[in-house]
Amino acid sequence: MTWKLTRSELDNQNLLLNESLLSLGNGYLGVRGNFEEGYKSTYNSIRGTYINAFHDETEINYGEKLHAFPEIQQKILNVIDAQTINIYLDDEQFSLFEGEILHLERNLHMDTGYSERIVHWKSAKGKEVKIHFKRLISFVTKELFAIEVKIVPVNNIKLVKIVSIVEGKVSNFVDKNDPRVASGHATRLRISEVRQHESFSIVKNITYATKLEVACVTSSELNIVEYEYVSKITDSSVEETYLCNGNEPIQFTKYNVYTDTLRHGKDIVDEALAIHQQLEDISFENLLLIQRDYLDHYWHNADVKISGEDSLQEGIRFNLFQLLQSVGKEQQSNISAKGLSGEGYEGHYFWDTEIYIFPVFLMTNPEMAKNLLIQRYSILESARVRAKEMGHKKGALFPWRTITGPESSAFFPAGTAQYHISADIAYSYIQYYLVTKDEEFLKYYMAELLFETARLWIDAGHMKEGLFRIDCVTGPDEYTCIVNNNYYTNVMAKHNLLWAAKLYNLLKEDDSKLLNQLGDKLNLSEQEVSEWIDAGEKMYLPYDEKYKINAQDDSFLQKDRWDLANTPKEKFPLLLNYHPLTLYRYQVCKQADTVLAHFLLEDEQDLETMNNSYNYYEQITTHDSSLSSCIFSAMASKLGDKAKAYEYFRKTARLDLDNTHGNTKDGLHMANMGGTWLAIVYGFAGLRVKESGLSLAPVLPNNWNSLEFHLLYQNRTVNIKIERRTVTYSLIEGDSLTFSHMGELIYLEFGKIVEKAL
Amino acid sequence: MTWKLTRSELDNQNLLLNESLLSLGNGYLGVRGNFEEGYKSTYNSIRGTYINAFHDETEINYGEKLHAFPEIQQKILNVIDAQTINIYLDDEQFSLFEGEILHLERNLHMDTGYSERIVHWKSAKGKEVKIHFKRLISFVTKELFAIEVKIVPVNNIKLVKIVSIVEGKVSNFVDKNDPRVASGHATRLRISEVRQHESFSIVKNITYATKLEVACVTSSELNIVEYEYVSKITDSSVEETYLCNGNEPIQFTKYNVYTDTLRHGKDIVDEALAIHQQLEDISFENLLLIQRDYLDHYWHNADVKISGEDSLQEGIRFNLFQLLQSVGKEQQSNISAKGLSGEGYEGHYFWDTEIYIFPVFLMTNPEMAKNLLIQRYSILESARVRAKEMGHKKGALFPWRTITGPESSAFFPAGTAQYHISADIAYSYIQYYLVTKDEEFLKYYMAELLFETARLWIDAGHMKEGLFRIDCVTGPDEYTCIVNNNYYTNVMAKHNLLWAAKLYNLLKEDDSKLLNQLGDKLNLSEQEVSEWIDAGEKMYLPYDEKYKINAQDDSFLQKDRWDLANTPKEKFPLLLNYHPLTLYRYQVCKQADTVLAHFLLEDEQDLETMNNSYNYYEQITTHDSSLSSCIFSAMASKLGDKAKAYEYFRKTARLDLDNTHGNTKDGLHMANMGGTWLAIVYGFAGLRVKESGLSLAPVLPNNWNSLEFHLLYQNRTVNIKIERRTVTYSLIEGDSLTFSHMGELIYLEFGKIVEKAL
Repeated sequence: MTWKLTRSELDNQNLLLNESLLSLGNGYLGVRGNFEEGYKSTYNSIRGTYINAFHDETEINYGEKLHAFPEIQQKILNVIDAQTINIYLDDEQFSLFEGEILHLERNLHMDTGYSERIVHWKSAKGKEVKIHFKRLISFVTKELFAIEVKIVPVNNIKLVKIVSIVEGKVSNFVDKNDPRVASGHATRLRISEVRQHESFSIVKNITYATKLEVACVTSSELNIVEYEYVSKITDSSVEETYLCNGNEPIQFTKYNVYTDTLRHGKDIVDEALAIHQQLEDISFENLLLIQRDYLDHYWHNADVKISGEDSLQEGIRFNLFQLLQSVGKEQQSNISAKGLSGEGYEGHYFWDTEIYIFPVFLMTNPEMAKNLLIQRYSILESARVRAKEMGHKKGALFPWRTITGPESSAFFPAGTAQYHISADIAYSYIQYYLVTKDEEFLKYYMAELLFETARLWIDAGHMKEGLFRIDCVTGPDEYTCIVNNNYYTNVMAKHNLLWAAKLYNLLKEDDSKLLNQLGDKLNLSEQEVSEWIDAGEKMYLPYDEKYKINAQDDSFLQKDRWDLANTPKEKFPLLLNYHPLTLYRYQVCKQADTVLAHFLLEDEQDLETMNNSYNYYEQITTHDSSLSSCIFSAMASKLGDKAKAYEYFRKTARLDLDNTHGNTKDGLHMANMGGTWLAIVYGFAGLRVKESGLSLAPVLPNNWNSLEFHLLYQNRTVNIKIERRTVTYSLIEGDSLTFSHMGELIYLEFGKIVEKAL
Repeated sequence: MTWKLTRSELDNQNLLLNESLLSLGNGYLGVRGNFEEGYKSTYNSIRGTYINAFHDETEINYGEKLHAFPEIQQKILNVIDAQTINIYLDDEQFSLFEGEILHLERNLHMDTGYSERIVHWKSAKGKEVKIHFKRLISFVTKELFAIEVKIVPVNNIKLVKIVSIVEGKVSNFVDKNDPRVASGHATRLRISEVRQHESFSIVKNITYATKLEVACVTSSELNIVEYEYVSKITDSSVEETYLCNGNEPIQFTKYNVYTDTLRHGKDIVDEALAIHQQLEDISFENLLLIQRDYLDHYWHNADVKISGEDSLQEGIRFNLFQLLQSVGKEQQSNISAKGLSGEGYEGHYFWDTEIYIFPVFLMTNPEMAKNLLIQRYSILESARVRAKEMGHKKGALFPWRTITGPESSAFFPAGTAQYHISADIAYSYIQYYLVTKDEEFLKYYMAELLFETARLWIDAGHMKEGLFRIDCVTGPDEYTCIVNNNYYTNVMAKHNLLWAAKLYNLLKEDDSKLLNQLGDKLNLSEQEVSEWIDAGEKMYLPYDEKYKINAQDDSFLQKDRWDLANTPKEKFPLLLNYHPLTLYRYQVCKQADTVLAHFLLEDEQDLETMNNSYNYYEQITTHDSSLSSCIFSAMASKLGDKAKAYEYFRKTARLDLDNTHGNTKDGLHMANMGGTWLAIVYGFAGLRVKESGLSLAPVLPNNWNSLEFHLLYQNRTVNIKIERRTVTYSLIEGDSLTFSHMGELIYLEFGKIVEKAL
């Protein structure tokens, strides 16, 4: 059952949650797992269809607006709703909230890429029907969202009426009381076109401010010959009604094609019609087969097999499936914090991408990983502009939250102040290069991005008494904002600076012409490069002699400790129950901060210090952020604490499935989903990729039989299987390879298996 | 000319400025110096009438709202406009922006308390007229705003038409680009009544949210017998038209009485009518005489005479006059940052009251001073509630900005985080007690307030390694926010804590019954009192060994210094040109912070440290805040630098008159006005009031002949006259007195003069 997520409950608490869990997407288009029969006042729903990066801009209001506070905020939009298919049995409308449910089963098929809902239902007046819905959002034709409904009347039904609607009047969901959800005005789309053309329903919308357009062009099919058809065009929708004889099974299929002006040029309706034409001869069954084929390829590289604990196996597969469903696969889009499963965090891209999600694709699907980097490169100019706005003389400051580049964070202490995102992006570029050795990428994207981010640090920091210091930034831990010398930020900036210099010298040797061009473009001097080296080498990394740990920042350890033991359970997450100032005043962490730095750059400190840090910060970390437990798991593996590694892993693997953070209704926690994989591959398997190459240090949780997965590394595919007493490595694709296992160099040839005892 | 402010320019740059400078008020009601002839599109105007504390509440919008961010903001309202008197000469309307001005003179009479505008004007068609407007807002009948107009036709005018309007449709002024002005929606008043009753025009408004009501009831008088009268009642206004023969002088007087439900109970129209009745037999001339009498008394105690520099004499008199015009004289009101002269800072009360303004009244008019304290006491409950919201177990946290108690600051790093306001209020209570020895006040207000603020510090700070530390607050300097151990905050908190304990012990001896009652009410234990003493005595006061100064906070001196010398002039004030994070990152101060602490609590450090601090911080202070130069002046006097004291004093004395901060149009800078007086009395004259008594240490700026003023101290009035070589003290009221002159004890008897050489 670990390939299929099944849900059958129907209570208000789970409705919203299941809408997120059962959402479908392909990185371009996403649809929440709402019911086709549409909105009923008795049931809670966030009805949503999203296109990655398709957004409007809303004004950000401030009680007190200071200089360079962003004036507008980008916001992903809930677009045209093509989900609705209402079914009537004679004079009664099918609804799970009336009549009697004889059977209900909802499945998300992670191996084959579709969802279904199987219903056996009896109306108040006793009419029985079996209905089987299937939905698919195609990975191959990204614009396509198809629904198939099979209706089998069981008794005594004269007329089955199907009303299929494409509705352009849509709004976003607003929850003023939760800063993690969304803000501002809900309606941002104006209807610009509603019509029928031949057998197509056409609805087109345009955003209020950005003037982006989206179209949904729908065609439908019935398997029966005799039926009555009526269509109605309203101000905002096309409603098609089919009246069918109630004594035979009916199969109704709805093909919705979404296009938008961010990708499809100007005539988006024509483009949608052209896509329909390409799809004309492909049945729903065939679409399912094509989808399965796509997913076979994905899972070949991405699957992680856990033997011995099905609930966690389900967890990791669900997470990997949802990551695939959410990740943008073209330059216009990245992966938003909630993927395409909800409106939480407004569809913004955060550092979540680089630190938590990117590594998954890097090691299993480097082309997708590269796309994430290219999308960041495409907003480098925005990052330069933002650096200027923030008073820097040069360099690039990436926005904390954005879709297409402009900073969209409205609370700078836990927003713009998180300068580390620029180093995080640089870090992901470096990791990409180490894993792929993609020299073209290095020359045409990486060098420029690293140079510009290095410049930021020089301008943001300053040398004092022989040490390079960075004041007034916020690290990953949002419970302690605007601090001096955040260890994480400083160590990541150091990495950024030294790699920028390294790249400069590498290019100087390898391609001085390109370097000259770039140098001219950026007005870059050798003097600057020496400054990078100087700042990097003299970077101040706070260390506390008393505790023998790295201090989270200059003053963190001076503060009082939060009394977590005596904080009532209902006061968590703390951010919803305490003013930020109160949180800042104490030693209390929302998430891994110094521990994350140790995870990413383990060679910066000795093992003892990292161990001390881990133990110290663990005591005061609430894990109120979903980006935390995975890192504590991976570092526990590193530090040899298998039990802890496993316990933290459990928390991450099923965070959304079990709704442990209570807000999965607003969308899935993408970073945590990537984190699950990190906890396995960087954690249990001990993967690291450094200049010295790839290394592994496997351990297996006690109650598992085995753990198996593939890694893609420099055009090779390596299979790794960890069992209780052994680990076996085999090269299933590519040239032979040397890597480190537990510090021992292993030479691996194609087709050969190397087995090592554990 | 130092008793009269005269303006005659009429260009757009000065129009708004002069509206603020020539505003009238009495602490209850304020009217900007707008033109009676009302709004013309050609002229910039912020037309305003304000009632102290009369406010509405608007929602504060946040892009990202976190826990305990205030949801509503109080906002002073521009109320019913009774200023308008339009004058027509035959078919032409009188307007300074058309025709030709033959003479224009605007005067503000600071000795007698009224303003006037004298005009000789020729219309486009050549009709000439002399018009003399006089305005008065009575200090004796606070509800009264009266205008007298004398119209003398000079040539060939057939008909003079006077249109007098009372307009209820009013809005606040909005400027989105300046956080110091105002925000949100401009219209907050609904018209609830417009009618005429006998000869009275009645307009009544009600606020949208607070449901406060304001009424303006107006009666008018003409000195001539024959005229035609027409009145018109619109949805929002009463317009009265008088048609007069154009060949004789006309005198028109308009008596506007404002009442509101914050002070006048429910039937505010009836109350206004009753006030009219009381005023019935009092002519405008008589009102002027009564006003003069009131001001004679004020100036008797408050005047500061500078001989030798008229421009500064004018400055100090203007400032003292405007302070009187702005200060609330009843429990419902305090003094807002811009007084009643404009809408800047939304009519909020800040720490400006306690630290900058209160001392002026304390030493010249203790009853008014006491009222300011009582108003704070009246919102103590709100401060307790706010402390709870901010996560404190007990104590009172006063709002950074408020009118009737709720925190109205929308940007907490430079708002709620300024915890020092609670210590500032405690400081003013202590000063009041030292100056007045008012035992009743001590028992019924001061003890409770000091106990509750002391509790705040215990909960906000913590003991670490034997020192009491206060983390994550913002000191007075808003260019460095959310810091640990701000020297100012810590030293003021120490004062607060030790005085709370002192008071506790004093009451224990003197009135244990009262103490028991209070203890029961507050659930106060002796244990807490020992904690206050312990925390106070062990308060950590940052000191830097290298510079031998008090560090502004724990990390201030670690930061890079802002390069003020190379910052272009147009980049000031920095807050309008740099993101707060950029400012926080550098050693750069908006205003006196540590220097202010040294000024208020000079016994906490030795003179050398204070001198070093002064020199250090002076280098990096922009004085972008209008609360800064005065303190640098006063401290320069203390430290013996006469030249500097004088230079800083010059900047404060005429800050509004010369519009040196460029934003006087939005209202006068009340705190600076108080600061002017501080720079003289605490600065040049060296006044301090401590437990040991009153002390003076006079110096005279080089280019002055003399400086003379009165001080009220423990029911005595002392005259102090500082001349080039001598200072003379004389007791003009009250019992004999011992005080310190330059460290020497002086015994002063009634009617005797003591002269000391300088």
